[in-house]
Amino acid sequence: MTKKIYLPENEMPKQWYNIVADMAQKPLPPLDPKTLEPLAPEALEPILPKALIAQEMSQERYIDIPDEVLEKYRVYRPSPLFRASGLEKALGYSGKIYYKYEGVSPSGSHKPNTALAQAYYNKEEGIKKLTTETGAGQWGTALAYACAQFDLECEVYMVNVSFKQKPYRKILMNTFGANVYASPSQRTQAGRAVLEDDPNHTGSLGIAISEAVERAVQENDTKYSLGSVLNHVLLHQTIIGLETQKQLAMDNAQADVIVAPLGGGSNFAGLAFPFLKEKMQGTSNTRFVAVEPSSCPKLTQGKFRYDFGDNQGYTPLMPMYTLGHNFVPAGIHAGGLRYHGASVLCSQLLKDGFIEAKAIDQLTCFEAGILFAKAEGIVAAPESTHAIAQVIREVEQAKIEGAQKTIVFNLSGHGFVDMAAYGDYLDNKLTNHRVDNTAVQKSLDKIKRYQPDNFLKELTY
Amino acid sequence: MTKKIYLPENEMPKQWYNIVADMAQKPLPPLDPKTLEPLAPEALEPILPKALIAQEMSQERYIDIPDEVLEKYRVYRPSPLFRASGLEKALGYSGKIYYKYEGVSPSGSHKPNTALAQAYYNKEEGIKKLTTETGAGQWGTALAYACAQFDLECEVYMVNVSFKQKPYRKILMNTFGANVYASPSQRTQAGRAVLEDDPNHTGSLGIAISEAVERAVQENDTKYSLGSVLNHVLLHQTIIGLETQKQLAMDNAQADVIVAPLGGGSNFAGLAFPFLKEKMQGTSNTRFVAVEPSSCPKLTQGKFRYDFGDNQGYTPLMPMYTLGHNFVPAGIHAGGLRYHGASVLCSQLLKDGFIEAKAIDQLTCFEAGILFAKAEGIVAAPESTHAIAQVIREVEQAKIEGAQKTIVFNLSGHGFVDMAAYGDYLDNKLTNHRVDNTAVQKSLDKIKRYQPDNFLKELTY
Repeated sequence: MTKKIYLPENEMPKQWYNIVADMAQKPLPPLDPKTLEPLAPEALEPILPKALIAQEMSQERYIDIPDEVLEKYRVYRPSPLFRASGLEKALGYSGKIYYKYEGVSPSGSHKPNTALAQAYYNKEEGIKKLTTETGAGQWGTALAYACAQFDLECEVYMVNVSFKQKPYRKILMNTFGANVYASPSQRTQAGRAVLEDDPNHTGSLGIAISEAVERAVQENDTKYSLGSVLNHVLLHQTIIGLETQKQLAMDNAQADVIVAPLGGGSNFAGLAFPFLKEKMQGTSNTRFVAVEPSSCPKLTQGKFRYDFGDNQGYTPLMPMYTLGHNFVPAGIHAGGLRYHGASVLCSQLLKDGFIEAKAIDQLTCFEAGILFAKAEGIVAAPESTHAIAQVIREVEQAKIEGAQKTIVFNLSGHGFVDMAAYGDYLDNKLTNHRVDNTAVQKSLDKIKRYQPDNFLKELTY
Repeated sequence: MTKKIYLPENEMPKQWYNIVADMAQKPLPPLDPKTLEPLAPEALEPILPKALIAQEMSQERYIDIPDEVLEKYRVYRPSPLFRASGLEKALGYSGKIYYKYEGVSPSGSHKPNTALAQAYYNKEEGIKKLTTETGAGQWGTALAYACAQFDLECEVYMVNVSFKQKPYRKILMNTFGANVYASPSQRTQAGRAVLEDDPNHTGSLGIAISEAVERAVQENDTKYSLGSVLNHVLLHQTIIGLETQKQLAMDNAQADVIVAPLGGGSNFAGLAFPFLKEKMQGTSNTRFVAVEPSSCPKLTQGKFRYDFGDNQGYTPLMPMYTLGHNFVPAGIHAGGLRYHGASVLCSQLLKDGFIEAKAIDQLTCFEAGILFAKAEGIVAAPESTHAIAQVIREVEQAKIEGAQKTIVFNLSGHGFVDMAAYGDYLDNKLTNHRVDNTAVQKSLDKIKRYQPDNFLKELTY
């Protein structure tokens, strides 16, 4: 048995997979919140380069990865596929478990897969600086690294409370050369307005987005960069699943169940989309399980309707599973999963029955993370522990059924820079957050302010 | 050009290399400080298992790695050899640079190579618990992980000041299941004595060693474990160099210069010893460069004489390059290099002219670390930045000579759990520590207390 399955560099995929090409029911268009008409591509030009807007709208099945991006990918890609032999033994499971490990990247998560592509396309169009927001810090770190690779300036607005709680994340971004500002900041109109009301505001991802977008719009040769949710971001992540398909073949294995956490969707999409192709063609029975935290259960308890992508209501309206853009999830450590909505593509696939969703509380996830650390020697990022916890459930179910299913999951990152989360768990400081349904209802009701009647009901198309 | 050279798992070396077999001048024996006679092997039995004592004394050229240890190695070994193409480009170097990356291990450094072996041999002899000390935390983390693999309890005495400054390290050890105590502690005679004098004592590695040894001697089925310096520890690390030799051959390359940091010696020995075999046989011109911090320059400014291995004078006397066991180096971030002496084997090889030594200040090292992070996407541990800084010097020299030397270095670990060090550098809080020669002289003079006249002069054999 081989523990680590390495795909040779010269067999790394040279194209990304665009799932839109194979979707029978194409995703509904994003809408301009003022006109409620489908958004014109040009509306995105102040913040995104043309090449990425084109990918956002593309229906081509495969899109070439530029040579310059392939070259940068080779620093850490193809990433290893691990046979989870230690976990199998710990669980007494006679089936196979594999995990694709994205923690080998420079920032320690899957995020550089899109950060490098985005930095490249911006550089090609003459852009000199990228702005972005970051909460937990995984995305900001990835973009900081990517900008260093393509000689771009990088300006990161980090939610104030995380800025203070996660000094290692800020230092890591600084090490890669980025400028990091606690948000709300004095550098933008949006930040100053918030600080005028409350000079000690702890910040929010919504405010940080506003600051980053404002800077991108106002400064010359500057664009904005987003780390999840959008189609082109999910597209770039599909290299994860494309590699995994080749690696499973090298080990003569086929996936019965694919598991990944779902925050905005890039982690899940990255592994699952290439495998979903056959499922949509009706030639595969593989199950696809997206895992979310119990405290932010948009997939299992949200509604499929048009909503804003950000808390403040600045973005286009997008058709997605949402808890309402005003929903404020509990302060769990898996910051990357604290998002009120799911990407349009993942939402559509859930609506159409191609994927399943499960919600798991954070105590169960950290318990799984500790078991995994001892069994496999990798301390998983808090987000990634959600996948592990679900895998354990799948194993329990398989044992009951007497089945030997091959389970494959996305270990999207390591937790070395977020050890405080494990510390809180070990010190019994964490609680078993579950969602407050009154809060969800109130949050969903607020969407009414922005939408005419025909959007208020759940979308049924 | 291949960026990452992976050795297949089934080609992983199955034996460690014992350099003593090939040394023309065998190392001088350790001495009992009371009798000044060579130490009897049995004297070590209260703290080490018999198998490790046998390895400590062995002159066999190759020693089989037990199957159980090989199996555990496969979680992260063979570790990748990287072609440093990004660094070559950043330096404008037309020669080749490679680095062996040990940061892929569960604890993020090379330390599990010996921790797993030590845990295994202790388990085989019926031991139930291992005790150890840790300063910066790399070693404690590795032993915590290794004990989890072989169902041993693990008790770590962590220097109080590090316990407070590096909470992530403690949490990481806890995650792997170890019990971690701030040293001095109330759990030992040694600790209580120190605390009686000063209840807020910041601790030292010397005190922590005393606590760990005391527990090992007093408790049933308990032994002590050391992470560097001793022959058997260096032996276990040689798998690094043995793999590197195969990987260089896969890339049709030959090392002209081998570079590694030297703290106790396990990092340096791990990469260099297998390559030194040919040098000692006179069939190789490869240069071997051990790098130490300017603030703790035992190799470049110390004396080759018998000295204690610990600050308190509890250990046997060992023939080594030393600054004196009372030397207290400046509080640099590369905690793994703050050791007053060098292992017996490395000291002997330096004395006999097979290796060279260079001292570099920490500002230069962190500058090299930042350059490397941007160029190669890996944030190196503070210890490892010393190798990078020396590689940059080697490149500058090669350019002057118009030579295209192939340089290979040991990137012994990542710095994710020690980002505060980079933060201090980026915030201009670090100073360019150099050694105070008066302090060195005073420290060396103290050795006189313990040695008769014939040991006072430098050893000349």
